[in-house]
Amino acid sequence: MAIDEMWLQFSILKKRLTNEIFYVNLEYEDKITIRLRSEICEWLGCQLTGEKSEATVVLSVNSKLDDNLEAYEVKENEIIGASSVGLLYGFYAYLRLKLSGANLSEKSAPAQSLRMINHWDQVDGTIERGYAGESIFFGRFGSNDNTDTGSFAVKNIGTDIFRNDFTRLKMYARFLASIGINAISLNNVNVRGLGTSLIVSPYIEKVGEISKLFATFGLKTFLAINWAAPKLIGELKTSDPLDENVYTWWQQTIDHIYEVIPDFGGFVVKADSEGEPGPYQYGRNHADGANMLAKAFEKYNGLVIWRTFVYNSQTDWRKRKNDRAKAAYENFMPLDGDFSDNVILQIKFGPIDFGVREPLMPLFGALKKTNQLMEFQITAEYLGHQLDLNYVLPQWLEMIHFDNYGQPKDTIRANSPVATHSGFIAIGNVGMDENWCGNKLSQANFYGFGRMCWNNDLTATEILQEWIALTFSEVKAEVQKEIFELLIDSNQTYELYNAPLAVGSMMVPHYHYGPSINGYEYDRWGAYHFSDRNGLGIDRTTATGTGFASLYAPEVAKVFEDKSKTPDEILLFFHYVEYGHLLHNGKTLIQTIYDQHFEGFERVKSYIKSWKSLKGQVDEATYDNVADRLERQLEHARNWRDQVNTYFYRMSGIPDDQGREIYR
Amino acid sequence: MAIDEMWLQFSILKKRLTNEIFYVNLEYEDKITIRLRSEICEWLGCQLTGEKSEATVVLSVNSKLDDNLEAYEVKENEIIGASSVGLLYGFYAYLRLKLSGANLSEKSAPAQSLRMINHWDQVDGTIERGYAGESIFFGRFGSNDNTDTGSFAVKNIGTDIFRNDFTRLKMYARFLASIGINAISLNNVNVRGLGTSLIVSPYIEKVGEISKLFATFGLKTFLAINWAAPKLIGELKTSDPLDENVYTWWQQTIDHIYEVIPDFGGFVVKADSEGEPGPYQYGRNHADGANMLAKAFEKYNGLVIWRTFVYNSQTDWRKRKNDRAKAAYENFMPLDGDFSDNVILQIKFGPIDFGVREPLMPLFGALKKTNQLMEFQITAEYLGHQLDLNYVLPQWLEMIHFDNYGQPKDTIRANSPVATHSGFIAIGNVGMDENWCGNKLSQANFYGFGRMCWNNDLTATEILQEWIALTFSEVKAEVQKEIFELLIDSNQTYELYNAPLAVGSMMVPHYHYGPSINGYEYDRWGAYHFSDRNGLGIDRTTATGTGFASLYAPEVAKVFEDKSKTPDEILLFFHYVEYGHLLHNGKTLIQTIYDQHFEGFERVKSYIKSWKSLKGQVDEATYDNVADRLERQLEHARNWRDQVNTYFYRMSGIPDDQGREIYR
Repeated sequence: MAIDEMWLQFSILKKRLTNEIFYVNLEYEDKITIRLRSEICEWLGCQLTGEKSEATVVLSVNSKLDDNLEAYEVKENEIIGASSVGLLYGFYAYLRLKLSGANLSEKSAPAQSLRMINHWDQVDGTIERGYAGESIFFGRFGSNDNTDTGSFAVKNIGTDIFRNDFTRLKMYARFLASIGINAISLNNVNVRGLGTSLIVSPYIEKVGEISKLFATFGLKTFLAINWAAPKLIGELKTSDPLDENVYTWWQQTIDHIYEVIPDFGGFVVKADSEGEPGPYQYGRNHADGANMLAKAFEKYNGLVIWRTFVYNSQTDWRKRKNDRAKAAYENFMPLDGDFSDNVILQIKFGPIDFGVREPLMPLFGALKKTNQLMEFQITAEYLGHQLDLNYVLPQWLEMIHFDNYGQPKDTIRANSPVATHSGFIAIGNVGMDENWCGNKLSQANFYGFGRMCWNNDLTATEILQEWIALTFSEVKAEVQKEIFELLIDSNQTYELYNAPLAVGSMMVPHYHYGPSINGYEYDRWGAYHFSDRNGLGIDRTTATGTGFASLYAPEVAKVFEDKSKTPDEILLFFHYVEYGHLLHNGKTLIQTIYDQHFEGFERVKSYIKSWKSLKGQVDEATYDNVADRLERQLEHARNWRDQVNTYFYRMSGIPDDQGREIYR
Repeated sequence: MAIDEMWLQFSILKKRLTNEIFYVNLEYEDKITIRLRSEICEWLGCQLTGEKSEATVVLSVNSKLDDNLEAYEVKENEIIGASSVGLLYGFYAYLRLKLSGANLSEKSAPAQSLRMINHWDQVDGTIERGYAGESIFFGRFGSNDNTDTGSFAVKNIGTDIFRNDFTRLKMYARFLASIGINAISLNNVNVRGLGTSLIVSPYIEKVGEISKLFATFGLKTFLAINWAAPKLIGELKTSDPLDENVYTWWQQTIDHIYEVIPDFGGFVVKADSEGEPGPYQYGRNHADGANMLAKAFEKYNGLVIWRTFVYNSQTDWRKRKNDRAKAAYENFMPLDGDFSDNVILQIKFGPIDFGVREPLMPLFGALKKTNQLMEFQITAEYLGHQLDLNYVLPQWLEMIHFDNYGQPKDTIRANSPVATHSGFIAIGNVGMDENWCGNKLSQANFYGFGRMCWNNDLTATEILQEWIALTFSEVKAEVQKEIFELLIDSNQTYELYNAPLAVGSMMVPHYHYGPSINGYEYDRWGAYHFSDRNGLGIDRTTATGTGFASLYAPEVAKVFEDKSKTPDEILLFFHYVEYGHLLHNGKTLIQTIYDQHFEGFERVKSYIKSWKSLKGQVDEATYDNVADRLERQLEHARNWRDQVNTYFYRMSGIPDDQGREIYR
């Protein structure tokens, strides 16, 4: 089976470009312009002339086009980049317009400077939270199955850890560039096994080969490191960031990396989190740790991307005032202004962990003197494992536009001391699966992330329409519309049958797929719902709860502190609410729970009906792939509906006011 | 570290026998008498004379001693067996009396004919539900850790699957013989991977080597089979028991086994259970399946041991009338009288699965024309994983004496068409751990099972006193007493802090250690507690529930059908009970739940105090081993106490009447 072309439908593009003759008009060539020539001639098989006069499309670089060197302009017969990489982006924009049949007229510059994908790929080929087969970077022997097992030990597969499938890697780099991604980290932030050694010989040389390919598509390569590397592979007795030997080891390691990869991006670091080592072990803080590395990177303009996902995963459910939601704020707010200029904090959009519904992380807007990246998760860890339909852009866009001392889409740049050291980053969702994402329709999220980074003002509707116009460019308009309808509310549908009203973790532990209402309730992960016979929800108010609500800007805090003002959809994240409490929707809490769960299930039923009507209208591989996933989703939605409804019926004793079947 | 000698304290025995001179007075020698000579000379290093007149102890066989050829008599200067194996048992009885300092005067015959251990060992060295390191039979490369992972996939470790540690195996065979065990099956009843091939070359030859050693200790060797073996390894298209090719394949396979192992015991079969294949797949019943194999075994006097643990593990929690407890009865009661004479049904003592508290399986007493084995579990799957103290004999003895058309200790023999084809069987608890059982004190259950099989009238107190007298033969009487106190109620202690009043499965799925109150509640395993805001328990009455209670003898059913007559400790197994309901103990259900859980925890605290007082009084390895386990048990008991109490407080809203701390 051929590997899926996603939104760059090769054979259709080829047809549409059959009459075009390209001319590349440049003063200087570089690896990116050479890549561009190769894309035109070799990938698309188009005519590339040496005579400008023959050309129907002229490509050129003009640094005066825009202050932003990544900007481009596409016209009927011309593509202009503010730099070579801008030109590359312009070229893919041109293809996008061609494929979707839009006007060839677009001038654009990216809204976010760093537009990055993190891979959680492991050296044995597994992917932490991967739902589309094994890693495209690592592993050689494994199957193409869903590799998420809920446990992420790394198998020892010897030292020959790279997959070396450069055909795949080139395709992937092209997809990334075509949506404007400009940075990538290759390996899981939980760095285990030989993953720790990727930063040294002989592994860094192989990373260098990948990086060299990626650079031709305008992509900087990063690696995730294990904080304890000086001990684990450097034979030092400590990893204390203030120890001189530790610093020297890092400096030498980084020096060597730049010998091999002169344009290396930097490190991604998960420290002191979920059992990973970090500076706290040595009584140092995160600025001590990050700045030490930053110093070693300074002369290379390398970056240290430091994750704020720091919390104590040994929480005791008995201690109700403890609140994992506060952890990142409490750990990093006091350090605002203390980080070096080449350190960037990578901050998840929500205070817990990519949940189905979370409020904005209150660090956004509050951190005023720190470089910032806002982190998303394309891979559907909490959102249905790429089995259930879930077009997630509505959720992400709500987050980047949520006003907490301004909107993050603006504040993360404005509050970053080095403006270009800011942006968006997401965990990738691709693997060795033929269609890259397990579920064909999950490609929309990958595409959407790139587009959202580039243009913060696109709506979820616009992005989805774009993706459908590209991916299904030759199917009928009615069919495109049907696919649109299927996806546009799918994130909300998932939310309807999931844990109610943002109360959070009610899913099967470790796997995070399927309901387990008390799965985390008495565990050490700080994710509780506190349901009892009277009600449920987490009291995060200042007066009677954990006080998390007070961490927001005053006008936001005023809303979240007040049960009567907090919007329904986020209510149980902030308040313990009785079953009989009337919500803004005019119904009681318990009736809302029932209604949402019945509705979520019915919606999936209607998705199946709708998809079945498309048989013969979309290609067979896509039809079968999605049909199979929808059947699984229906079973999933049924389990959620019945378990949640029964659980809360048993708890509350209150029947459904419409008399629908709730099992005793 | 030396391998633990368990209850056969070699160095002490040696001292006590230093003045004895043994003489073996026999008409015929066989492999068992040769083993006996070797035990005297080589193992114990005692004097074995050729001159009867020199002897202080004369060993002989006298078939007139007893109708039961396994009987023995020990006197001051004489050991007599009704056969060679009887003599072997008499010899170990002599050692027991010597070691414990009892009078050398005992005449005894075993109460049960078959006294068997099943191993759930897998060919990769793991043990399903093993808590004492890897298999002593299989595996070569693994660590000595607790191998229970909750999932039992078998790794491919190549074809060299045997451990070949014959030193260990000989020690183990001696332990078995010393407590009268006379049969053993080597491999897990869930037969996976190369386990299926143990019955054919080249594996059966290696099984033959083990079997040959074990036979010298009076032990018959059995193997568990995979019902689908004709398809899996025989290249047939079916495993239908009525298919002629299937029968021929089994006959040839069995013929070959007996060429290699002339005294092979037979097969243990788990069919149509928990996803294992079986005759139901072909529309045949269990008698069809078992009798087909039995026919192939007939000429060899081989046995087919057929497990009744047959239930549908795809139960739907939504269907409340379904009842896993009824499954074995419904599957096997209609077949009473249909099984061949060399088939034995292996029936778990309780209707669910070795739970902390279950009523007797109602098949006992009801089956009148079927050979029967009563099945126990020494390995502590549901009883604390050999981390928590749990001397289980009180529970087992209650079961063998529970009157349902007579007591099982008598009825299983009386109702077996071939009386000698009946007995007790248990899942073993040993592994490669230095002390065999993970927890030194778990040895008492292994010892106790053998003694219970041999003498059904021993009390739990007597068995424990015996075991302590042997294992701690040279520690002070006060210390022995302290150990006794620690263990004698430990099964009850575990029950106190576990799921309340026999309601069943509230433990962590797969692992079965630690609380997870709803862990199985919405799953497919048929193990539910149905708790809600008003009460909890499973209604198994005929009037309003599943009707399971009616399966007992009328006078027993009368008790279990009636909430007011059912004993407290089994109440929630048979009835849904409201929190405010007054129990026989004079307290409400909810208060009983609280009290038991507080008490269970306090008892473990007192165990620790008691054990600490023994420091220096018992050997250091034992002291440290148990001290470590007790600390873990305390944490375990605390988790149970707090999670159960909080869960039911949240459900019921009723506070503890003594105001102790229950977390919200």
